[in-house]
Amino acid sequence: MRIDLNADLGESFGAWPMGQDALLMPVVSSANVACGGHAGDPGTMRRTVRLARSHGVAVGAHPGYPDLLGFGRREMQMSPQEVEDLVVYQVSALAGIARSEGVRLQHVKAHGALYNQACRDEDLAEAIARAVVACDPSLVLFGLPNSALLQAGLDAGLPVAAEAFADRAYHPDGSLVSRSQPGSVIHDLDTVVARAVAMVCEGSVEAIDGSRIAFEADTLCVHGDTPGAAALAAALRRGLEDAGVTVVRLTR
Amino acid sequence: MRIDLNADLGESFGAWPMGQDALLMPVVSSANVACGGHAGDPGTMRRTVRLARSHGVAVGAHPGYPDLLGFGRREMQMSPQEVEDLVVYQVSALAGIARSEGVRLQHVKAHGALYNQACRDEDLAEAIARAVVACDPSLVLFGLPNSALLQAGLDAGLPVAAEAFADRAYHPDGSLVSRSQPGSVIHDLDTVVARAVAMVCEGSVEAIDGSRIAFEADTLCVHGDTPGAAALAAALRRGLEDAGVTVVRLTR
Amino acid sequence: MRIDLNADLGESFGAWPMGQDALLMPVVSSANVACGGHAGDPGTMRRTVRLARSHGVAVGAHPGYPDLLGFGRREMQMSPQEVEDLVVYQVSALAGIARSEGVRLQHVKAHGALYNQACRDEDLAEAIARAVVACDPSLVLFGLPNSALLQAGLDAGLPVAAEAFADRAYHPDGSLVSRSQPGSVIHDLDTVVARAVAMVCEGSVEAIDGSRIAFEADTLCVHGDTPGAAALAAALRRGLEDAGVTVVRLTR
Amino acid sequence: MRIDLNADLGESFGAWPMGQDALLMPVVSSANVACGGHAGDPGTMRRTVRLARSHGVAVGAHPGYPDLLGFGRREMQMSPQEVEDLVVYQVSALAGIARSEGVRLQHVKAHGALYNQACRDEDLAEAIARAVVACDPSLVLFGLPNSALLQAGLDAGLPVAAEAFADRAYHPDGSLVSRSQPGSVIHDLDTVVARAVAMVCEGSVEAIDGSRIAFEADTLCVHGDTPGAAALAAALRRGLEDAGVTVVRLTR
Repeated sequence: MRIDLNADLGESFGAWPMGQDALLMPVVSSANVACGGHAGDPGTMRRTVRLARSHGVAVGAHPGYPDLLGFGRREMQMSPQEVEDLVVYQVSALAGIARSEGVRLQHVKAHGALYNQACRDEDLAEAIARAVVACDPSLVLFGLPNSALLQAGLDAGLPVAAEAFADRAYHPDGSLVSRSQPGSVIHDLDTVVARAVAMVCEGSVEAIDGSRIAFEADTLCVHGDTPGAAALAAALRRGLEDAGVTVVRLTR
Repeated sequence: MRIDLNADLGESFGAWPMGQDALLMPVVSSANVACGGHAGDPGTMRRTVRLARSHGVAVGAHPGYPDLLGFGRREMQMSPQEVEDLVVYQVSALAGIARSEGVRLQHVKAHGALYNQACRDEDLAEAIARAVVACDPSLVLFGLPNSALLQAGLDAGLPVAAEAFADRAYHPDGSLVSRSQPGSVIHDLDTVVARAVAMVCEGSVEAIDGSRIAFEADTLCVHGDTPGAAALAAALRRGLEDAGVTVVRLTR
Repeated sequence: MRIDLNADLGESFGAWPMGQDALLMPVVSSANVACGGHAGDPGTMRRTVRLARSHGVAVGAHPGYPDLLGFGRREMQMSPQEVEDLVVYQVSALAGIARSEGVRLQHVKAHGALYNQACRDEDLAEAIARAVVACDPSLVLFGLPNSALLQAGLDAGLPVAAEAFADRAYHPDGSLVSRSQPGSVIHDLDTVVARAVAMVCEGSVEAIDGSRIAFEADTLCVHGDTPGAAALAAALRRGLEDAGVTVVRLTR
Repeated sequence: MRIDLNADLGESFGAWPMGQDALLMPVVSSANVACGGHAGDPGTMRRTVRLARSHGVAVGAHPGYPDLLGFGRREMQMSPQEVEDLVVYQVSALAGIARSEGVRLQHVKAHGALYNQACRDEDLAEAIARAVVACDPSLVLFGLPNSALLQAGLDAGLPVAAEAFADRAYHPDGSLVSRSQPGSVIHDLDTVVARAVAMVCEGSVEAIDGSRIAFEADTLCVHGDTPGAAALAAALRRGLEDAGVTVVRLTR
């Protein structure tokens, strides 16, 4: 059994550091690197690619809305064409910096509001898939299982990776419980690890109503911007490995 | 005899149009396309690449300082590493958008204050050359004849193109007369055309003190942001062709 | 009878000009000046205030979403507190520049998507009203008649101005016909002038279904960014004056 | 004897925190609040003003170059008029937010490269002084002793405050030793406190060559962005108070 562990990294901006990249990089197998849209800048991108390379971590692009002040978390009304152009721009910029460091991109994971909107909006999802195909049709597109985004990737012939969150509650239909609801985020470390192991080893997880749901995940997301994120990530990896799971990037 | 005619194009930004791209594109052989630094945005970049492609015009990157408000014309104190990262970022972003339109970049011409500073500052010049090599060592680097920028390109093994300005006065040493001095810009259409023909056919031009200076030019710059720019460009091309010069891009 | 004519002005940005400010300023009585959010910059703001002052035109703030690339026309998901802070920031910045030119602000008109969202969303409307009160409770708040925005201004004790569009079609309930529908924008000059006169002199206008609707307007908006905008504005003013209407700013 | 202690605060941006505002605010008497140029945003500005108010700390504007990525530390080639407009814009924006919190600005301290350039360039210094007079002629302008900036403030009739750095070495002529030179920054806590006491109580300090120089300081700058900044600031205040110095804002 194997699983990919991904985290959003390289989200500093100029003089402002963010995240715990140095602690998370040794733990994850895939890094989603901000591309100068919602966060990141050319220098931060280069340093993050180097750090990933030194740990053998796969590098992916993490494109987001051009809303630095809102960190790409505020929904915006962009047309599919605007989104397509934005994604080609940001992914290509990171790909160029990565190439200059001898690294080839593995995947694309949209950020924040762009990810959420594209998971439910077919037009945006198709725009992102078109952009990724144009950049490199061997890039793996990340998305929620059963989302419009993952479907658009499949339709476009892209390799895709279904992403799961071990520290988030799920509805019986497999959708995420909104952060605004009680119980949506699971804080107990042991529970999170147990859920991750269940997701990977049994292909199922307990939904918020107590029912058990089938569930396929190719990559688990490790949040990097919460206090204790690095400790959680390390515990998650250890727990998975103790259960006989190999933590490994998606492609070689 | 042959010469390349280049112009800065794609310098609109969002809702703000700039320049006379539709009129200039049929006249030039190389387009320097803004990359979202001093001007341009993903959508504008795509439209400009398409326009160039439809006219058989070669596309180059036109990276500039990240100073939108100052249009990249204000000198900034960036370190060579910052400049290198910036150039890889911007050139790669445009290369990706161009590739998605089936177009491969021909050249890189730095913009405004970045160009001027790099023509006289070896460290910046070398930073730009390193960036271009990292992006694609077959890209042609533009620079003033005898400048630090052109030299850095040669030292890095890049193909280079010496750029001349038919509407600008030169000192006897081949350097440009500053715009702040009287007589620095030549407005008479016939004189400009005659100087262009002399530059290309005779490899020389009259300096501001009346002396004749030898002068090799691979590409002539056509300014796009002045009233009458399109008329001047058309006259220039016609004048060159009437003198038996072929106006043609640098690479195929 | 009297009416205010307003236009969005000062929407250039750095090297990018926009609009026909020099032609429109002699025609309008109130200028909505961009504040560096969706458009405008400190220098443009100063020049626009000076131009307004020289024509005796009242100056108002035209705050917008911080989305330069989208020109503030894309809806964004900002919290009421974020909107309140944004409006205080932008209005105060313009007020300071105006004061340095001896000009006191007359009004505040939100721009683009912010205006549209605030006209229908009470929380945003109240955020804007709170911001305007904090800046200066004598400022006139612009809004569509019967909108949440105008109501929030009234509730906050602000003077308000109901804004009408002589070149736009209305539903029988007084709401604007969306631009995406046929017939939503009226292009015939004489019809536009006749509608403006009816709005002001009779307090009514013909709706898109042919019915006649009552309608009170304190200020008419003249669009500045369309070709022929200046000619339309001049015709509108002449038509109103010929009908005995005085075109005059809202406050002294 | 009395002295003002100032620190640069409110330099977070959106999702990116910076500095140790909560620890420094109880220690200083004047806060230089970023205005959305090099750092800060409307929400951060409001929160910082509130924090200052709750500690009885005077609020000043800290305008900087519009270079977020470079944190306003990179020199830029802006014209005096551009600088004047920029300063009026940023100071007015903060003044408006402060007013909405019932706080009146006490002072203006330019940030980073703008401060450094204006301390030695008369045209920039006069531009800043003109801007401050236009905003409010009772604002105190900060500058290095004997600098062009302080002189411009005096010439413009502004109250001024000479700023000193207890942790920086000085040349015998009273100018700062550049950070690039060894010994330019003093790290020993006791030495820094002793120097501060000497500056305030004796009006003199030891220069880098061992000579003693006379020196008048109205305000001491406490750096907020270094590790241990809060501890240094607290030690500085305690040391001054133990020596009988009252730490107090400049104006009431």
